[in-house]
Amino acid sequence: MVAKQLSIFLENKSGRLTEVTEVLAKEGVNLSALCIAENADFGILRGIVSEPDKAYKALKDNHFAVNVTDVVGISCPNIPGSLAKVLRCLSDEGVFIEYIYTAGLNPLTNATPASFSCSIIVFVLEHTFQKISLGKVYP
Amino acid sequence: MVAKQLSIFLENKSGRLTEVTEVLAKEGVNLSALCIAENADFGILRGIVSEPDKAYKALKDNHFAVNVTDVVGISCPNIPGSLAKVLRCLSDEGVFIEYIYTAGLNPLTNATPASFSCSIIVFVLEHTFQKISLGKVYP
Amino acid sequence: MVAKQLSIFLENKSGRLTEVTEVLAKEGVNLSALCIAENADFGILRGIVSEPDKAYKALKDNHFAVNVTDVVGISCPNIPGSLAKVLRCLSDEGVFIEYIYTAGLNPLTNATPASFSCSIIVFVLEHTFQKISLGKVYP
Amino acid sequence: MVAKQLSIFLENKSGRLTEVTEVLAKEGVNLSALCIAENADFGILRGIVSEPDKAYKALKDNHFAVNVTDVVGISCPNIPGSLAKVLRCLSDEGVFIEYIYTAGLNPLTNATPASFSCSIIVFVLEHTFQKISLGKVYP
Repeated sequence: MVAKQLSIFLENKSGRLTEVTEVLAKEGVNLSALCIAENADFGILRGIVSEPDKAYKALKDNHFAVNVTDVVGISCPNIPGSLAKVLRCLSDEGVFIEYIYTAGLNPLTNATPASFSCSIIVFVLEHTFQKISLGKVYP
Repeated sequence: MVAKQLSIFLENKSGRLTEVTEVLAKEGVNLSALCIAENADFGILRGIVSEPDKAYKALKDNHFAVNVTDVVGISCPNIPGSLAKVLRCLSDEGVFIEYIYTAGLNPLTNATPASFSCSIIVFVLEHTFQKISLGKVYP
Repeated sequence: MVAKQLSIFLENKSGRLTEVTEVLAKEGVNLSALCIAENADFGILRGIVSEPDKAYKALKDNHFAVNVTDVVGISCPNIPGSLAKVLRCLSDEGVFIEYIYTAGLNPLTNATPASFSCSIIVFVLEHTFQKISLGKVYP
Repeated sequence: MVAKQLSIFLENKSGRLTEVTEVLAKEGVNLSALCIAENADFGILRGIVSEPDKAYKALKDNHFAVNVTDVVGISCPNIPGSLAKVLRCLSDEGVFIEYIYTAGLNPLTNATPASFSCSIIVFVLEHTFQKISLGKVYP
């Protein structure tokens, strides 16, 4: 599953984060997965939203520095060892991961994962976007 | 909801991440929420696991640099505007957030959120651990 | 020594960094100390420049997301143990450091350090700007 | 100029940083360039030292998580526009930069830069170590 990730620069972490969510709320856009890559002064909010184009436009109109990146989402059973299996499979295929984070909802369907025992992991792969076939792991 | 977050230093992102998940898999420990704070060379895996003490010991025994931090998890309806409401409430109370990330499962009960329409957000609050009362927002 | 640090968001590390330096070059502004706090996708350039106000305006005019922070610069003899002495002194006074980096030139005088055997270290202190007296260390 | 960079994981920024510098001081090792890549909880100290092998061993013996990376140092005149010239040259040759920081001393000779008007910039290049020829820029 390929999704559009928005990355938004937060000049100061707390205040700007609240503003971002308020801009998205006003537009009726849902945040189904997010994490913050932060340092001492700043943060970068990475998020998967229900309507990336609408969100992008609204944030730009409100003078946020925002970017779009392609990411890969994988639905992964919520049992011990399932993520290890995905990662081993990827690394055996020479696919390297830049970062990952969990999603609360399936970012594409904007619904809870098909089965109770699944959660979605959002991956960003190194550099060029690489096709990955995980059919053998979770068909 | 208070949870123990493990932070694990990954000297190289991809390889070490796979190893961490394999150590946890071997112990039967589940990762219910995770994100990576990365830079060009390294990553820090932040994760909420089913059994923090067991996970900590297993990772230490396998020579990982690992730390424990108290974090706050909040169950948040998955509709546009709900996170904005939480964040506004926190910022009105003078609570500042260092970083946040979504969880696939309720990290405490290790089950899907009570209602289909909820996901869990993990917050790390600035510095000293501050008591927050969100009763007014999501009772 | 107190200085103004500029922090500039680089949506993509390499390309934007070159652009920032070209904007500053055109204005005749010198970068006397810099470092990049980066992650997989982005970077934040932190720099001490000869004319902070002029640099800030030029970068804003060129649509860069830029911020100003107060930092402390300390001239530190370039012999083994001198930085340890400064840091021990600061930590004994309860001053915590967010990040530090070395400077090629004295950021205030924009000249090489007074003595050959000195370099300048730029410190950012935790939170509120704290007065520090290092007279006992390097009078 | 190629140098060995040490990267040291700081579980908590202030305290561990002081300890690192004290370990190096005890060994008589000089830090000629450094910066911290930090997030809310942690830091990574990147440094160029006078004796990388000795420093590496001493830090390992003191149970620090430490790594070695090849970096490129370039002596760059301290006048407006000189860094822009280096970066433009690198980007024209398709060399991408992960991060850079200034050095107080020439990390190889452990002396002040040859001329008063020069400082050293430490570059980390993307991925595999790439040969760069800057002869045309600063012969």
